Amino acid sequence: MPSPRTTAVHPAWLPPGAFAALGGRRVVVAGDGALTSTVAAEVAAATAAHGGSWARLEVGAGTADADLVLTLAEDDPSNDADEGFRFMRDGGSAVVQAPTERGLLYGFFHVVRLGEDAFAGPDTDETHAPAAELRMIDHWDNVDVHPTMGQVERGYSGGSLFYASGRVRDDLSRLDAYARLLAAAGINRIAINNVNVHAREARLLTEDLAGVARIAAAFRPWGIRVHLSVSFASPTLLGGLSSNDPLDPEVAHWWVRAAARVWDLVPDFGGLVVKADSEGQPGPFAYGRTHADGANMLARAVAPYGGLVHWRAFVYDHRQDWRDRSTDRARAAYDHFAPLDGTFDENVVLQVKYGPLDFQAREPVSPVLAAMPATRLALELQVTQEYTGQQQHAVYLGPQWSAILRFRLAGGPEAGDDGTVAGLVAGSGGFAAVSNAGTDELWTGHPFAQANLYAYGRLAWDPLLDPSAILDEWVALTFPDAPVELGEALHAVLDTSWETYEMYTAPLGVGFMVRPGHHYGPDVDGYEYTPWGTYHFADRDGIGVDRTQATGTGYTGQYPAPWSDVYESLGTCPDELLLFFHHVPYSHVLRSGKTVIQHVYDTHSEGVERVEAMIAAWEPVAGLVDPAVAERVAERLAEQLRSAIEWRDQVRTYFFRKSGVPDEKGRRIF
Amino acid sequence: MPSPRTTAVHPAWLPPGAFAALGGRRVVVAGDGALTSTVAAEVAAATAAHGGSWARLEVGAGTADADLVLTLAEDDPSNDADEGFRFMRDGGSAVVQAPTERGLLYGFFHVVRLGEDAFAGPDTDETHAPAAELRMIDHWDNVDVHPTMGQVERGYSGGSLFYASGRVRDDLSRLDAYARLLAAAGINRIAINNVNVHAREARLLTEDLAGVARIAAAFRPWGIRVHLSVSFASPTLLGGLSSNDPLDPEVAHWWVRAAARVWDLVPDFGGLVVKADSEGQPGPFAYGRTHADGANMLARAVAPYGGLVHWRAFVYDHRQDWRDRSTDRARAAYDHFAPLDGTFDENVVLQVKYGPLDFQAREPVSPVLAAMPATRLALELQVTQEYTGQQQHAVYLGPQWSAILRFRLAGGPEAGDDGTVAGLVAGSGGFAAVSNAGTDELWTGHPFAQANLYAYGRLAWDPLLDPSAILDEWVALTFPDAPVELGEALHAVLDTSWETYEMYTAPLGVGFMVRPGHHYGPDVDGYEYTPWGTYHFADRDGIGVDRTQATGTGYTGQYPAPWSDVYESLGTCPDELLLFFHHVPYSHVLRSGKTVIQHVYDTHSEGVERVEAMIAAWEPVAGLVDPAVAERVAERLAEQLRSAIEWRDQVRTYFFRKSGVPDEKGRRIF
Repeated sequence: MPSPRTTAVHPAWLPPGAFAALGGRRVVVAGDGALTSTVAAEVAAATAAHGGSWARLEVGAGTADADLVLTLAEDDPSNDADEGFRFMRDGGSAVVQAPTERGLLYGFFHVVRLGEDAFAGPDTDETHAPAAELRMIDHWDNVDVHPTMGQVERGYSGGSLFYASGRVRDDLSRLDAYARLLAAAGINRIAINNVNVHAREARLLTEDLAGVARIAAAFRPWGIRVHLSVSFASPTLLGGLSSNDPLDPEVAHWWVRAAARVWDLVPDFGGLVVKADSEGQPGPFAYGRTHADGANMLARAVAPYGGLVHWRAFVYDHRQDWRDRSTDRARAAYDHFAPLDGTFDENVVLQVKYGPLDFQAREPVSPVLAAMPATRLALELQVTQEYTGQQQHAVYLGPQWSAILRFRLAGGPEAGDDGTVAGLVAGSGGFAAVSNAGTDELWTGHPFAQANLYAYGRLAWDPLLDPSAILDEWVALTFPDAPVELGEALHAVLDTSWETYEMYTAPLGVGFMVRPGHHYGPDVDGYEYTPWGTYHFADRDGIGVDRTQATGTGYTGQYPAPWSDVYESLGTCPDELLLFFHHVPYSHVLRSGKTVIQHVYDTHSEGVERVEAMIAAWEPVAGLVDPAVAERVAERLAEQLRSAIEWRDQVRTYFFRKSGVPDEKGRRIF
Repeated sequence: MPSPRTTAVHPAWLPPGAFAALGGRRVVVAGDGALTSTVAAEVAAATAAHGGSWARLEVGAGTADADLVLTLAEDDPSNDADEGFRFMRDGGSAVVQAPTERGLLYGFFHVVRLGEDAFAGPDTDETHAPAAELRMIDHWDNVDVHPTMGQVERGYSGGSLFYASGRVRDDLSRLDAYARLLAAAGINRIAINNVNVHAREARLLTEDLAGVARIAAAFRPWGIRVHLSVSFASPTLLGGLSSNDPLDPEVAHWWVRAAARVWDLVPDFGGLVVKADSEGQPGPFAYGRTHADGANMLARAVAPYGGLVHWRAFVYDHRQDWRDRSTDRARAAYDHFAPLDGTFDENVVLQVKYGPLDFQAREPVSPVLAAMPATRLALELQVTQEYTGQQQHAVYLGPQWSAILRFRLAGGPEAGDDGTVAGLVAGSGGFAAVSNAGTDELWTGHPFAQANLYAYGRLAWDPLLDPSAILDEWVALTFPDAPVELGEALHAVLDTSWETYEMYTAPLGVGFMVRPGHHYGPDVDGYEYTPWGTYHFADRDGIGVDRTQATGTGYTGQYPAPWSDVYESLGTCPDELLLFFHHVPYSHVLRSGKTVIQHVYDTHSEGVERVEAMIAAWEPVAGLVDPAVAERVAERLAEQLRSAIEWRDQVRTYFFRKSGVPDEKGRRIF
């Protein structure tokens, strides 16, 4: 039987060639335990493929003649939470020493990333450790196939890796390859089902536990713990109770028993993810309780096992009246949660989307992240490209995430890195992100979207990594034998692709303008008269949402200084967020010297030109990659160009029809 | 076992009380045959319920002492096509005499409609006959449940009456009640599946024939013949052939054999309905053949059995580029079909939607209806309220259909009634309409939508009937015991409901402004940048589609005089079609003296006020009807009001934002 690594599934960033630097070397793996065996198996495979030899020894046994020693620390008292490692290079041989098996695993992949550099260069003795203890991937997979959404909500990569035919897959062998990729990127937690928990999926917590345990077993050798999304209404849905009131002892008891059953089967189970009182999901509001009441009740049920409750802050009124300009969805998370700061139990992680709306290509950073110092906060990112091209468009999100992570939200200039988003969450609730992987043979629909999954893991480990350097890593691992032109072309295509996408879609931070339901492609007024709270308020004179304290919804007041003032004033608000915070006339002059309307005309033309340039950069090197990858990329780039043109023409036409202002460059508008 | 008539299903326009005038009378039914037995069973049930006696005799046997004689004609040579009857009243007793059994059935329902008037009033001797031989209902039912459309495409009344669990229902007993209702309204043909023929439904023609035969058997006692929608690609889909080329003898032979199988099982089978080369359905274009080639090939296969081919003229480019204002979907049917006039076989019926677009609340009449004198044309109407409120809104369509039928399209003023739409089609291909009935216990979702189904049948029988009089008939039959206030209230709610619906939706004939996909509710720009060819071209200065010959798409030139000139000129184009034919500034003054923009503001407010008046008219009489009906009506009226307000506010806001012109009445715009 072929191992999953040799099936038709694409190896992504771990092809055999990525391990070539181990070739011809003598490697020692020292230590006991399952994850150490994982490392040993990797070393065995690499030396078998590329030459060299390896041995598994006791910790402290003779390693003198090895080129690479991967060893558990001899005398460190094992702290299971410690995932760091020490990397030493001395005269061309290298040692990875780690206090825990997980540290050893990450140290091994560090060596893989370094390649020949692991053994070359000056002597060194470095310690490495992840910035965040919690580095999680969330899957929005349903057990059943949803009639309109497909099996994976906002999934653009085929079906679910976990479920088929209405239950947990019998054959989970592909999870080994998936877990290996995630581990190599540094991810250590995975939630295996959609936060919108439908009736079928609620039962994962009860009748499907044996399947959940099998999934957990597949991830365990890679240091990844499994979490479940659960319905807050589980006591009534599954337990036959008459209430889900978090202060009802019977409800609490039901959850205590549910937790006991889960950890009984899966002793290293990670915890629960909850979307409550949001977009129709049940929650504590129905019982007049707070989100803290709800989260803490669950937290107490899972605390004895070291379990976590990831409680999502994505709570807003999705039945808003579009006529009512005083309601502002952007305010909702702060309004709901900031007053609860300090009331959540220690094992509750409040999971906060990076922006106040919903994973747009451009939003300001959520003010909630600075508003709850006494709460464990996780930053939620979206690797799946719901609003950024749905893996039809090549959009490398590393630069967006890096900008978010480095943004100095709190504490003013003197706070230093502690005040960055990374500083606020890394030592707190860490990171969570929605996965973009599915049963697609290339994992992610668009082959280049693999880079997003990789980059997320790397940034969760070290939020200050340069996204361009991460792209270098990904290219070197994924295409180990390719000439330098391929890497150059990939940089040309991807480095500024986020900016390009922003250019041809919604302008100046105003967001949305997508088709309701599927969220792909342009529809300028698509959400304008809906209950979803996402409007642009364009009329014949101007556009944008007035979120100032002076004349608008007051949202700017949720920010700490200096941002509350920076965003409040038209004079200081950054151009790229202008329409998020202000309603301005089309004639408003940006810092670039252009009017808003001319900016819209220009960026939408430039966006298309840049997609054409991406294609021109890619085509000469397409023959350097696997034909299946090349074919997929070609098909997606063609669709990206078609879609970008559609965006350009619709947006330009819409605003010309509305403003009546001609393009000063005289280009055709329809 | 209860008969279907006594189950929980609503009796619609044939409750027991509708037969009360037969009570206490002596009735004779004279003649042999299955349909005469149907009449006899009706008479038996009525006299059993209401008193009286009846007898079944030979034709010509003694009938001297009867109050009502229903008899086949003694000496008329039976002409199966003749559905007429003679109605005589003489001194308080009545005779219906018909040359065929079907005529007898329609004569019987004529007596039922007359009620006491059948026996009262002056002596008379009248002959009645339907204006059209073909009076068809089309079902857009799928065998399988479509993932987004449900089982019945554009169905708003539950599931299919014909199919369940992926096949023809085992229990077809409800079809007896449905066929009885259709027959009482005068319908004599039914197509039992969606014109969009998916893979599963294509097989109705082959492996499901036994089921089709059972359906035909249920309709047969009511004089209704069954038709099937078929895929033009059946030879490849079902027969394993490599082509569907209509000029390929092998293809023609496949259809000859298919027809033989069908008529072998169902000797009175009606024929085939085909949507070809339209919205993705296969057709003759793929083989470089014309629609006449395609239709005639099928027609020759079914001709030996007296079968018909209903070939739909709804053919247009559904991948149109919205940027290209020279392409005009309204032109498509004429451009495709008019040149083919005279080339279709005699048993081909070209089925033409009433307007050039798609069943909008307001469109001009299709010019195709006047352009093909040498072709058998059927008028296609839509009883199901796809674009007229989806049976959530009370919209009585009788007045719309009447206006279409009486419209003098052809031949100029001297042509008389022959030039009306009714005159053009009644003696030609007759009528077809999409049914609004489903498994809903009230048949049609909105109880008042029953009136539409009834009115369609009556107008197909006599297109010059007054729609208000038809409503009287429907009220008298449906609510036989109700006081006069109920009828008055129903007139208040329904008589002008079409006009009301038009007021709060798309203005001045411009059409659409609905959500793509489901077509319900407002979305002014919903189709504006789509490939569907249905645009309004609103900008900050004006709105409408220039379809003139002088400066537009030239569509007006498809009309015969005087309409080509009437529509061409802004000075003569009727207001209600203004934006269908012309692009005008918002300041354009209508015949009413109002500007276009003020008309939009006013009609959208008035539309809502009229819905409020409908509710006010209905509420006092709601207690007079069956509580289940009253509850459904109340729920639907509430939704109609909500939806009308949403239409009003979105349309007014959209045009205010675009035009900048304030409402001269100072009402609030958002």
